[in-house]
Amino acid sequence: MNGKIMIMNGPNLNLLGIREPGIYGKEGFDEYLNVLREKYEGIDMDYFQSNIEGELINKIHETGFSYEGIILNAGAYTHTSIALADAISAVTTPVIEVHISNTARRENFRHVSFLSAVCLGTITGFGLDSYELALQALLLRRK
Amino acid sequence: MNGKIMIMNGPNLNLLGIREPGIYGKEGFDEYLNVLREKYEGIDMDYFQSNIEGELINKIHETGFSYEGIILNAGAYTHTSIALADAISAVTTPVIEVHISNTARRENFRHVSFLSAVCLGTITGFGLDSYELALQALLLRRK
Amino acid sequence: MNGKIMIMNGPNLNLLGIREPGIYGKEGFDEYLNVLREKYEGIDMDYFQSNIEGELINKIHETGFSYEGIILNAGAYTHTSIALADAISAVTTPVIEVHISNTARRENFRHVSFLSAVCLGTITGFGLDSYELALQALLLRRK
Amino acid sequence: MNGKIMIMNGPNLNLLGIREPGIYGKEGFDEYLNVLREKYEGIDMDYFQSNIEGELINKIHETGFSYEGIILNAGAYTHTSIALADAISAVTTPVIEVHISNTARRENFRHVSFLSAVCLGTITGFGLDSYELALQALLLRRK
Amino acid sequence: MNGKIMIMNGPNLNLLGIREPGIYGKEGFDEYLNVLREKYEGIDMDYFQSNIEGELINKIHETGFSYEGIILNAGAYTHTSIALADAISAVTTPVIEVHISNTARRENFRHVSFLSAVCLGTITGFGLDSYELALQALLLRRK
Amino acid sequence: MNGKIMIMNGPNLNLLGIREPGIYGKEGFDEYLNVLREKYEGIDMDYFQSNIEGELINKIHETGFSYEGIILNAGAYTHTSIALADAISAVTTPVIEVHISNTARRENFRHVSFLSAVCLGTITGFGLDSYELALQALLLRRK
Amino acid sequence: MNGKIMIMNGPNLNLLGIREPGIYGKEGFDEYLNVLREKYEGIDMDYFQSNIEGELINKIHETGFSYEGIILNAGAYTHTSIALADAISAVTTPVIEVHISNTARRENFRHVSFLSAVCLGTITGFGLDSYELALQALLLRRK
Amino acid sequence: MNGKIMIMNGPNLNLLGIREPGIYGKEGFDEYLNVLREKYEGIDMDYFQSNIEGELINKIHETGFSYEGIILNAGAYTHTSIALADAISAVTTPVIEVHISNTARRENFRHVSFLSAVCLGTITGFGLDSYELALQALLLRRK
Amino acid sequence: MNGKIMIMNGPNLNLLGIREPGIYGKEGFDEYLNVLREKYEGIDMDYFQSNIEGELINKIHETGFSYEGIILNAGAYTHTSIALADAISAVTTPVIEVHISNTARRENFRHVSFLSAVCLGTITGFGLDSYELALQALLLRRK
Amino acid sequence: MNGKIMIMNGPNLNLLGIREPGIYGKEGFDEYLNVLREKYEGIDMDYFQSNIEGELINKIHETGFSYEGIILNAGAYTHTSIALADAISAVTTPVIEVHISNTARRENFRHVSFLSAVCLGTITGFGLDSYELALQALLLRRK
Amino acid sequence: MNGKIMIMNGPNLNLLGIREPGIYGKEGFDEYLNVLREKYEGIDMDYFQSNIEGELINKIHETGFSYEGIILNAGAYTHTSIALADAISAVTTPVIEVHISNTARRENFRHVSFLSAVCLGTITGFGLDSYELALQALLLRRK
Amino acid sequence: MNGKIMIMNGPNLNLLGIREPGIYGKEGFDEYLNVLREKYEGIDMDYFQSNIEGELINKIHETGFSYEGIILNAGAYTHTSIALADAISAVTTPVIEVHISNTARRENFRHVSFLSAVCLGTITGFGLDSYELALQALLLRRK
Repeated sequence: MNGKIMIMNGPNLNLLGIREPGIYGKEGFDEYLNVLREKYEGIDMDYFQSNIEGELINKIHETGFSYEGIILNAGAYTHTSIALADAISAVTTPVIEVHISNTARRENFRHVSFLSAVCLGTITGFGLDSYELALQALLLRRK
Repeated sequence: MNGKIMIMNGPNLNLLGIREPGIYGKEGFDEYLNVLREKYEGIDMDYFQSNIEGELINKIHETGFSYEGIILNAGAYTHTSIALADAISAVTTPVIEVHISNTARRENFRHVSFLSAVCLGTITGFGLDSYELALQALLLRRK
Repeated sequence: MNGKIMIMNGPNLNLLGIREPGIYGKEGFDEYLNVLREKYEGIDMDYFQSNIEGELINKIHETGFSYEGIILNAGAYTHTSIALADAISAVTTPVIEVHISNTARRENFRHVSFLSAVCLGTITGFGLDSYELALQALLLRRK
Repeated sequence: MNGKIMIMNGPNLNLLGIREPGIYGKEGFDEYLNVLREKYEGIDMDYFQSNIEGELINKIHETGFSYEGIILNAGAYTHTSIALADAISAVTTPVIEVHISNTARRENFRHVSFLSAVCLGTITGFGLDSYELALQALLLRRK
Repeated sequence: MNGKIMIMNGPNLNLLGIREPGIYGKEGFDEYLNVLREKYEGIDMDYFQSNIEGELINKIHETGFSYEGIILNAGAYTHTSIALADAISAVTTPVIEVHISNTARRENFRHVSFLSAVCLGTITGFGLDSYELALQALLLRRK
Repeated sequence: MNGKIMIMNGPNLNLLGIREPGIYGKEGFDEYLNVLREKYEGIDMDYFQSNIEGELINKIHETGFSYEGIILNAGAYTHTSIALADAISAVTTPVIEVHISNTARRENFRHVSFLSAVCLGTITGFGLDSYELALQALLLRRK
Repeated sequence: MNGKIMIMNGPNLNLLGIREPGIYGKEGFDEYLNVLREKYEGIDMDYFQSNIEGELINKIHETGFSYEGIILNAGAYTHTSIALADAISAVTTPVIEVHISNTARRENFRHVSFLSAVCLGTITGFGLDSYELALQALLLRRK
Repeated sequence: MNGKIMIMNGPNLNLLGIREPGIYGKEGFDEYLNVLREKYEGIDMDYFQSNIEGELINKIHETGFSYEGIILNAGAYTHTSIALADAISAVTTPVIEVHISNTARRENFRHVSFLSAVCLGTITGFGLDSYELALQALLLRRK
Repeated sequence: MNGKIMIMNGPNLNLLGIREPGIYGKEGFDEYLNVLREKYEGIDMDYFQSNIEGELINKIHETGFSYEGIILNAGAYTHTSIALADAISAVTTPVIEVHISNTARRENFRHVSFLSAVCLGTITGFGLDSYELALQALLLRRK
Repeated sequence: MNGKIMIMNGPNLNLLGIREPGIYGKEGFDEYLNVLREKYEGIDMDYFQSNIEGELINKIHETGFSYEGIILNAGAYTHTSIALADAISAVTTPVIEVHISNTARRENFRHVSFLSAVCLGTITGFGLDSYELALQALLLRRK
Repeated sequence: MNGKIMIMNGPNLNLLGIREPGIYGKEGFDEYLNVLREKYEGIDMDYFQSNIEGELINKIHETGFSYEGIILNAGAYTHTSIALADAISAVTTPVIEVHISNTARRENFRHVSFLSAVCLGTITGFGLDSYELALQALLLRRK
Repeated sequence: MNGKIMIMNGPNLNLLGIREPGIYGKEGFDEYLNVLREKYEGIDMDYFQSNIEGELINKIHETGFSYEGIILNAGAYTHTSIALADAISAVTTPVIEVHISNTARRENFRHVSFLSAVCLGTITGFGLDSYELALQALLLRRK
């Protein structure tokens, strides 16, 4: 374990701050990440975003045997991708599932997650704070 | 809005004219597009095809804030891709869903569309004419 | 084929312009039809509306062996009437299913259509323009 | 609002007193209505019965913009008619759904009502008293 | 009981011989009925056809307390009409459900009958012979 | 039968007037009950509220063999409590199910009632008037 | 074709006349068969009964390429045996499905038949007369 | 808002450390709470546990208009209690749903939560750390 | 293990002998228990009844680590209470599920038991004898 | 009634002691039966085992009008055989359903029993003791 | 293990070559088996066919503790027989499930197999070659 | 046809030997392929692996009109990708579906395959031998 944290965002999260601000908020992810890195300056955080399911799988393979933790917001692939779930099962790094919005308040098809059962745990509905809480969850494991 | 129309085709539609002509007809899409461009010569139409779900999402992001309209035949991703539906929700350009075949006559899994609810409207079953009707739907909005 | 087009409206569409304008718009159907007839003056269009399922069936029988096309907005009977679907199957004139509102955004019971599989094609969600697009779909078949 | 109340009965309720008296009781509706009119003599009540779904819709259109209230026992159309529900949504007069028998004790297909969600309220299971309670519900709204 | 038999046909059966001959055969119902009346000349048979659900209900009410038997091919209303089933329950004349085609080989929605449970019995799949078998079923009850 | 009426309210109805006034109105239940008692002064009405399912059962046992009627708004236990339904079945006093809001317009899980089939009847959607209508339903039974 | 008719009864039909007479009647099958043979004396009818699914299949194989028709009451195997349905599909003799009771009035699991779709037709609910009607259905085919 | 945090545990969580340690861990909740209070000494935390659904509702009513936040592990009531969900909706204090185990890995009936949609957010699967993360989620809201 | 047996009854079983005697019999539970204690005089049997789900849970916690066995008739909570099932899982004393009536003959919602999978075994349908058989099941374990 | 008890075992129970001992135990049924006969020596017990569904039906017919009771472990036919259930309904001897393993802990398809509703009662999960408890249930009926 | 291979065919496969040649081919199984035995002459293959579910179970018991492998085409029992699946679980010889036709292209009820989960593996859709591939699968295990 | 065989692996199969060896075995795919190529040295086998659904589609298009056969283990896309199924339908080369593990023993969502119906056949559960069996299936077609 290299002590690094990988933060991964799935489809459409590159539009954060632009896309449906009523649901996802007005802040872009880059600005948020800067603030987070400043606040947790001893922690080495990598970031990856892709709209392509298979590239997310590739990145999990790449980091999932050496990183300390992966914080994953898989966006809509949460609800449809068994392949992503299999990738998480296949690696040894713990993965934490996060969601910005409270998915339980939205369409029925967002109430199903293929990822939850293979992740360490799930943090849903706290806006961008969900990422920081996931980070703290990884840090609490250090004790 | 730049007054341009994006026509996008999803998976396997690159095989049009070759693939299952009993269902999809014998005409290739390129020939069809040439005829269409000639008929509507004042209209600036771009074309994009990909078999990769995430590349379709990327292209919707790219064109979905500046084009006048997107005509989208998402092929089989119509029935499985919440990520594509999220991309359509996220942009401001109106998207029209089209299908060549009458999907209601085919397998049950083709009766579900994740896209319809987030598109402006849907045109299904008119063969390649479905694209021209979608174009006319966009033109009728100009009035 | 007598080259005539029958436009048929099902239940509650006589209230168009009065009924739920947030969903169906403020324009009455008669005014719309006048505009349409003026625009397509060479085309002979008949119009029929009834709230009674069996009268719609009768009219399909009456016109379905001689007219060039039928444009049918069956309203709520779309979702419940197998008898209407059987009438469409029984005749030889092509029938196009149209909807004013985007039914995919409304209640679940409006996501099912008994008619789609027996119609030539379906046009949904373009407001009153849906009728004109259906007309153009019939005209495109002439070529 | 003209201060009049429309009482409407749907299919098979013309047989009341004859049809399955174990479920619906032995009293015919006309006798009941006479008693009701005597008891509430200041109230102007109209009555309409039809076995034809579309005629019920027509009558709702006819009275649904001027009457003070509609008391509707739609019989079996309660469980199958979206068109009737749409008619109720389309008018401005409040409609109260009534049932003579306790539908929850009967077949499963009688447990579903397309009408409840678009009516003001529902009164079920009190025999013919259900109509009088609906009338009182309208009178309580006057206060 | 007046010893008369009512034969009733529901929606689209007026097109028999014209409509989908691959499923329903080439013979019109009138010709068939003539042959049947000749063969069973001592039997008084009435005939009624309507495409309107409520008119079928009216006719069941009208004949259902005096006729010896009703032979009913309710067509597509078989699968959707609780109101028709309620009419059959409400009368005292036995009703026999018949179908020309083998409905079990057709679409899933034709596998459900609201009428079977309230009819005396059901005869399905023998072409027009289904009517004659129903007649014989009534005659066997005479013994 | 002691001629008394028991009005029972289930979980969260103690917050009436405070809780979600958009759905349940602004009036507290105590004020309402005072007005009701004044209007029907010859009627002896008891009142009980509890958030504990088993205490509601206890109270039904206690009053269900001697009171003239029970008016029960079981709140959310309507949709989940078979035990409450069994208590109603077990006693001899008629129980009337009431709801303030129109439950058919709300979440799917509120469309199911375990109580309706074992109650005398159901009154739903008339705001606090639902209680008065239930009272009148009991009084109509006296005749 | 040898002009013979095979009448086959499945499980528990050997108890006819003894078993649940409220549902199946008081007459034993042997007595009934004697009466039937007398009435149709020119017709050669064989009879077979077994409680073993595979023996019914064997008998269908044995007679299904030479007999004129098979009248099959498969009892409970109707609802569970795909193997029996496959046997019927495999042979060339037409098979008619019969039921003594009106299965549509009984438990839900009796509403499903694996056999109907592979039989010529179905006759249900006429008591023992169902067999005679099936015989007449075969005789009508002779014409 | 009084700046206090209420931590509430539902049914069987009084057995923590004793009950199924393979799923819930070996630590009792009291010891854990002591450690938590020491670590966050400026934060005023109350604690309540009950096995009685209605007592949990009472406590939510009691604290839900004055406390800064409620951290709720409703145990099995998560999956069955609409009444508890209604209580959360009725109050103004934000409620955070926590679970010790990863419920997505357990029985299907634990995959449904009536609470998630009415809570601020959900934290699942981090063992007892789930409570601390919920506390941090509340603290992050202070900023 | 203290060699004692706890017999627990859930909701509405306090009305035994009074409640629906057609289903549950005419004998009260106290009389039955006296007879049982006399017959098995060397066996120390405690008895507890509550209509409150949480009190049943409390009692299981209280006795579930020291008693030799628990005989539990959870009444309607059998079909709705995951919390009760969790309590049974959490303790070490074997619990036997009993039912007086044959629940498989009753409403569909009584065919589901959350308790069976966590109990030692289930005894259903023998009237009050079900309790004695459960006792014997515990005694057979002693060998 | 001849005072004899028939113990019947269905498919694969001839392998008891050999088959999956983790689920069914190590004891063969013959040894168990010897012990049981010795313990209850005044009781005349017959035993029958078959892997053929129809032979089990035959044996129920044979003994079901004269024996005092039938103890039936129908193995996998419990979950699939309506024919067996019909046989039990058809006879007059009470039948008790037993299972060795706790079927509620196993695959979903073992949670359904066609037999329970037609048996006197069910005893599940006590290993081979289930048979002895069923015997005692029959003996308790003698009183 | 005796090094022998048992090839077993279930219901209707005795008609191979006669039955529905469009689906199952024109070759009879005996001819095929001769060719197979010649090609693999060192391999000792036994063959058994029965239309009786219980006889297939018997044969699995008989050979399932001594043969090297069983190649089983259970025909329609694949989709309905839990008893056959239990027999496979009970024995120690590996069983390979084969199908001649591609069952995924046929009726929905053929898409479910109770056997797959208890067999070593499944080979479907290669015509009679499916048997040879199963044989090769067993031979590959020898290495 | 060029006589070449394409072996394609979908998502996560690049981790073979590393990923969940309890399910997928310890051998990497490259080593396996080397052994296979040596054993079948006259056969020209190509190999392609991708985690990206659309790249698998692209490769099927590329090889599906010229290769003799495609052996496809689509991993998790088997259960979710209609687009992949459409690609297989669109090409003329026969495709064989293989799985290493016995998917019928795993999660429910792995029991559904969109690919089976469009592939020639399916081979499941034989570990890496599944690929060799698929190869032999293609070779058997040569005869």
